[in-house]
Amino acid sequence: MGIFTRNSAKIMTQPVLEINLNRIINNYKLLSDIVRPATPSAVVKDDAYSLNASIVAKALYEGAGCHNFWVAHASEAEKIVEFVPGAQIFVLQGIGEDSLSLFQKYKFIPVLSSPEMLAFWKKNQIEGVKPVIQVDTGLNRLGFRISELQKLNKSDLRLFSMVMSHLACADEKDHFMNQHQLDNFNKIRQEYFPGVPASLSASDGAFLDADYHFNMVRLGAAMYGINTAPYRRNQMESVISVKAPVLQIADLAKGDFVGYSATYRAATDRKLAILSIGYGDGLPVSLSNVGNIIFKKKDKIQEARIIGRVSMDNIICDVTDISGIKTGDYGYLLCDEYTLDDMARDAGTISYEILSRIGKTARYLRNYILK
Amino acid sequence: MGIFTRNSAKIMTQPVLEINLNRIINNYKLLSDIVRPATPSAVVKDDAYSLNASIVAKALYEGAGCHNFWVAHASEAEKIVEFVPGAQIFVLQGIGEDSLSLFQKYKFIPVLSSPEMLAFWKKNQIEGVKPVIQVDTGLNRLGFRISELQKLNKSDLRLFSMVMSHLACADEKDHFMNQHQLDNFNKIRQEYFPGVPASLSASDGAFLDADYHFNMVRLGAAMYGINTAPYRRNQMESVISVKAPVLQIADLAKGDFVGYSATYRAATDRKLAILSIGYGDGLPVSLSNVGNIIFKKKDKIQEARIIGRVSMDNIICDVTDISGIKTGDYGYLLCDEYTLDDMARDAGTISYEILSRIGKTARYLRNYILK
Repeated sequence: MGIFTRNSAKIMTQPVLEINLNRIINNYKLLSDIVRPATPSAVVKDDAYSLNASIVAKALYEGAGCHNFWVAHASEAEKIVEFVPGAQIFVLQGIGEDSLSLFQKYKFIPVLSSPEMLAFWKKNQIEGVKPVIQVDTGLNRLGFRISELQKLNKSDLRLFSMVMSHLACADEKDHFMNQHQLDNFNKIRQEYFPGVPASLSASDGAFLDADYHFNMVRLGAAMYGINTAPYRRNQMESVISVKAPVLQIADLAKGDFVGYSATYRAATDRKLAILSIGYGDGLPVSLSNVGNIIFKKKDKIQEARIIGRVSMDNIICDVTDISGIKTGDYGYLLCDEYTLDDMARDAGTISYEILSRIGKTARYLRNYILK
Repeated sequence: MGIFTRNSAKIMTQPVLEINLNRIINNYKLLSDIVRPATPSAVVKDDAYSLNASIVAKALYEGAGCHNFWVAHASEAEKIVEFVPGAQIFVLQGIGEDSLSLFQKYKFIPVLSSPEMLAFWKKNQIEGVKPVIQVDTGLNRLGFRISELQKLNKSDLRLFSMVMSHLACADEKDHFMNQHQLDNFNKIRQEYFPGVPASLSASDGAFLDADYHFNMVRLGAAMYGINTAPYRRNQMESVISVKAPVLQIADLAKGDFVGYSATYRAATDRKLAILSIGYGDGLPVSLSNVGNIIFKKKDKIQEARIIGRVSMDNIICDVTDISGIKTGDYGYLLCDEYTLDDMARDAGTISYEILSRIGKTARYLRNYILK
C-alpha cells in the first residue's frame, strides 16, 4: 500500500480509505484453491462488509470468475445484480412480503429457514427459482430444526436446490461443536436431502478438513483479510488501509488531562498529535487509551499510542518518541503492520465488527486499487 | 412512535429505522429556550450523527428557524448547503488543501485550530469569510495553546469572527474541569479577543450555568435525544426507533448452545426468537448476552434478553416468557422504553457511538416523521 511521502507544505483535513481489490481477488483465489473441488462462492452481504458490494462483486466476477454470491437481504442483491450477469445470488434472510417483488423481478434465490417462510414461499413460488433450505445443526440461529423437518412431506423436500447450515465455532479447529455439527448435518442430508447439493462452511470452515466443504463454500471474512483460523498464521492479505492527517501537534504538560471525561493524565511532559478521524469514521470508542497509530516515513515505521477517549471526529496519540512528525503527516489507523485483527484485539471486539463499520462512513476520501 | 399492530399472515425480513424530525425540532427548541439569550446552533456533523444531515438540517432550518450549523468536514457542509440558504455553516476540522475549493465555492466558515492552519488560511483567504479560532482550554484536543496565541500579532487576532473552545467534562455538573476551562476561556478572551463573539458550550454545557453559554451554544447530542446531563432525568425526547421482524421462533433444549463461539448455554429448556438485524445494522457486538429487545402489543410491553453473540445479520433473544409471539412480529431494539442511553449502558459504550452507527446502514427501511 505504499509508503507515505511527507510534504511539509500540506495541510490536509480528510481521512483516507484505500481498498485493495487485487488483494480481495488474491484472497478469494487462494481460498478457492483450498476448498476445491467444492465450488467457491463470495459473501458480499452488509455491502461487502461495508466495502461496497457492487464494486467488490464486479471485481470477483470479472477478476476471479466468481458466479455465486451470498447477501443477507434482497435489497442488497438488487445492488449487485447488474454487475454479475448470469450469476446466482443467494439471499440469506430469505423472502417476505417486504422483498417478494425483488425476487420476482430478478430471480434471486431465497434461503428458507422456517416452516412459516416455507409456507410463504409455497404461496408465492417464482418460476425458474429453486430455493435453498437452511437447517440448524447446533448454532441455534436461523434454520429448520429436526422436529420441523419431520413434518415436511416428500414434495416439500423436493423443492430445494441446496441444503445449507452454518458452523458456530469453526475458528477453533478442535472445538467439539465442529464434529457435532458435521455429524448432525450428515444425518440430516442422508435422511431428508439425499443427492441434494450441500453447503456447510464459511471462511472459517474452509480451513477445516475437506469433510466440511461439501459442494459449496461461502467465502466471506477471510476474503476480506480477517484471520478466520487464528490458531495459525494468517494466510490472507490485508485488504484495507485507513489513514488520517495530523491536524495539530501540541505539548502536553505533566499532570494535564486529555479528551472527554479526562480519561488520560500525563505522568510526564508529553507531545501529542491530533488526527482528523474518530468514531464517526467507524473506529471503536473502545480504542480509547489503547491501540496504536502507525507513522511511516520511507523505511521507518513508528507506532504511537492512542491517548484519551476517541471522539467523533478526532483521535489523539502520544508522539513524544516519534521523530520528525509534523502537521500534514498521515498516521495509519489500519495497514499491513496494524490490521483489523490487531485493532479488534486492542478494542476488545471482533475484526468483523470493525470492518463492517469502516466503509459505511461517507467522509473518507476513497481509493479502490485494481490493476 | 405508535404501537405495533400484529398481522399473523405477514413474513417480513427487513429492519426498520424511524427518525422523528418533530422530536428533533422539539428538542432543539427546548434547548434553545434554555440557552437564550445565547444564539442556539445545530451540530449536524457525521451526517447528523448518521441520521442524514440534509434532512435534519432542512427540518431545523424550516421548522425551528436555525441559521447556524456545525459540521466536521467541508464535504459534509456541501451536503447541506442547498437546504439551508443563507445560513452560516462552520467547519470544525478546518480548512486544508483537500477542502479549499469547497470553501471558495460556498463560503463555509473554517474553524482554525493551529498556527499551521492559520498560515494556510493567510495564504488562501476567501473574500467575505471570517474564520473562527479554536483555543484549547483543557481538553487538549484541537485548538491554539496559550504559547501559540502569544506569538500572534494584532492583525492575526483581528481575523476572526468568533473564538470558541470545547469542554471536556460538562456532562458532570460538578467536575473541577468545568470551572477550570471556564476560567481559562475567560482569560484568553479578555487578553486576546476582547469584544469578539464567543462559544464554549455544546449540548452538555447548555445545562451548566449561563456563564458557560456566551454568544453561541452548539446543540448536538441532546438534540438527538441523548441525555447529556445524566445527573438529572432526561428532558429530551427520544428521536429514533429501530425494530426488526422475528424471522423464526424455535425451541432451545436444556444444555444447548447459542450463536458463534457458543457463548450462551441454556440452563433450562427455552424458547428463542431470531430477529433480522445485527451488527451490520449498527448494533454493538458488545450487546451479546446483555441488553433487551422490547415487544409491544397494544398496551402490553414485554422485554426479552439478548442471548448468544450478536451476529452480522441476526440477533437472538430469549422469548420463553413472552406471550403470544410469532414470526412476523417486530421486536424493538431502540424505542421510548429502551433508548440509546439504555443500550449504551448495556453495551459498555457511549450513546453517541451507537447513534453514529445506526443510520449509516443502507439496509433499513427508513421512515422520517414530520408533521
